Amino acid sequence: MRRTIVGVMGPGAGASQRDLEHARRIGALLAQQGWVVLCGGRSAGVMDAVCRGAKEAGGLTVGVLPGDAPGGASEAVDIAIVTGMGNARNAINVLSSDLVVACGMGAGTASEIALALKSDKDVIILGDHPEAISFFRAVGKDRVTVARDPDEVIAVARRLLGR
Amino acid sequence: MRRTIVGVMGPGAGASQRDLEHARRIGALLAQQGWVVLCGGRSAGVMDAVCRGAKEAGGLTVGVLPGDAPGGASEAVDIAIVTGMGNARNAINVLSSDLVVACGMGAGTASEIALALKSDKDVIILGDHPEAISFFRAVGKDRVTVARDPDEVIAVARRLLGR
Amino acid sequence: MRRTIVGVMGPGAGASQRDLEHARRIGALLAQQGWVVLCGGRSAGVMDAVCRGAKEAGGLTVGVLPGDAPGGASEAVDIAIVTGMGNARNAINVLSSDLVVACGMGAGTASEIALALKSDKDVIILGDHPEAISFFRAVGKDRVTVARDPDEVIAVARRLLGR
Amino acid sequence: MRRTIVGVMGPGAGASQRDLEHARRIGALLAQQGWVVLCGGRSAGVMDAVCRGAKEAGGLTVGVLPGDAPGGASEAVDIAIVTGMGNARNAINVLSSDLVVACGMGAGTASEIALALKSDKDVIILGDHPEAISFFRAVGKDRVTVARDPDEVIAVARRLLGR
Repeated sequence: MRRTIVGVMGPGAGASQRDLEHARRIGALLAQQGWVVLCGGRSAGVMDAVCRGAKEAGGLTVGVLPGDAPGGASEAVDIAIVTGMGNARNAINVLSSDLVVACGMGAGTASEIALALKSDKDVIILGDHPEAISFFRAVGKDRVTVARDPDEVIAVARRLLGR
Repeated sequence: MRRTIVGVMGPGAGASQRDLEHARRIGALLAQQGWVVLCGGRSAGVMDAVCRGAKEAGGLTVGVLPGDAPGGASEAVDIAIVTGMGNARNAINVLSSDLVVACGMGAGTASEIALALKSDKDVIILGDHPEAISFFRAVGKDRVTVARDPDEVIAVARRLLGR
Repeated sequence: MRRTIVGVMGPGAGASQRDLEHARRIGALLAQQGWVVLCGGRSAGVMDAVCRGAKEAGGLTVGVLPGDAPGGASEAVDIAIVTGMGNARNAINVLSSDLVVACGMGAGTASEIALALKSDKDVIILGDHPEAISFFRAVGKDRVTVARDPDEVIAVARRLLGR
Repeated sequence: MRRTIVGVMGPGAGASQRDLEHARRIGALLAQQGWVVLCGGRSAGVMDAVCRGAKEAGGLTVGVLPGDAPGGASEAVDIAIVTGMGNARNAINVLSSDLVVACGMGAGTASEIALALKSDKDVIILGDHPEAISFFRAVGKDRVTVARDPDEVIAVARRLLGR
């Protein structure tokens, strides 16, 4: 039976220390809910951190990779989906997720939030990104929720997923 | 020899009357420069208007369609690229454009601006979208230029394309 | 740590009774090896049968869906990757698989074999498809192996995957 | 108004001298019909040759590139569609073509013929590929036509496109 997938999007090289800590904690909390964690899969930044957190809590991780070989995947990715499509894979990240969490901000993450809203997916934006929040709230109306910390991400996710 | 392509992105059903007028004028001005106009290709909103404007000025238009058949293309599209990939085609719109112009705003357009910045493409945002501008300037640094009207779009485009 | 993925490709509506029996058995045998089973994910033909077989043996299944929502997925898919890309997803099926097995034949399956050979992946063709075998052997040289039955598929797969 | 597009598929590095001569001639003949020539766009083999032939006859050429920048495009490509999707772009080549011509054979070309048949497109196979022809005729039924030379390609194309 199809498992619930939560996509966690965030920067690679540009992630802050705080983004990484948040991502690791979110990964662990999502795994504890029994949800599969999906991300961009690379061995960098939020992608790597969220998978590590999920694995530490015994979860299952899916990495949707931009390259055409699994070489650059995070070691904490269980299932590597190798797209060979570069950033076009961001659309797959979003469509495959029952819910999208943005942890940190950058151009790639912004594209994933926008694609999620275009596909009528709910998005939780974690943390302190006032310009992103006001912009995406204007674009996505009631599809955007803001969470202050990983615990609030989970609380909101439980509500949105009806659990 | 490869022709210069300017991608014009903007909403379909959600376009304002002002967006449509801007798009039509931009299409005509781009065609007068000898540039190919590329857009999302559907028979709606900014996509349709920019192609019509370009054709009225004798230009060549490329529509990169989300569906798997050319049925929903604007009548003003000369070359229909049929992707069958939904919004994942937004990445192709951006990669195929030497320069990206945003005319109007919405989730799809936001994804294209973000994907353009992720790929280090220059983006011109037309008009009155202060939240988008402040957000994307924060994300894309000096890759984002704001233009007040179609004539300024062309002036900026000529400068960015080195002509 | 990244898990080994074996992709099983075959027809949907056009699958024969024999293809379905083979697929179910292959799914079970792959799962017993501890390998993840990946397929096109739809609730039809070989895709559905191979996932059912894998689940009956306690395996993990990934379905890479052509549509833009998980609605048409097989009930035996655990992880639904929703691409929204139609048949362009066939390239992802192949790139994500450490090894590709063709069970039954049709235009979609043929495209996956060809894409696998183009990406230098090993392909095992099961059963009685002499024209396909002679054609793909000519195209793919020593990348194509023929197996007579599901047990031979596993024996060849173990050898190719170095186990 | 949307222009008729004929896609010409064939090997890059693996093209024979005969494939290249055929491709150049087909490009010229398609251009003389007023049809747009579409191909995989790279500066190699049949892709390059068909575009050169079309340009020599005053035609318009579209290259759908696998890479994420126009750098490797044939000089004879007018409109470079930059997909960044590797071989997944083969699906776009086929969907964007009103008719597909295979000139030469290899794994990439085979994938395009198969994807074309999967999408119910007509395919003309040029020349001396008996194994390919018998295989794809079995798969694609009456969608596959064989032509002996470039002139017969055009004659068949005119019939299939109803001109």
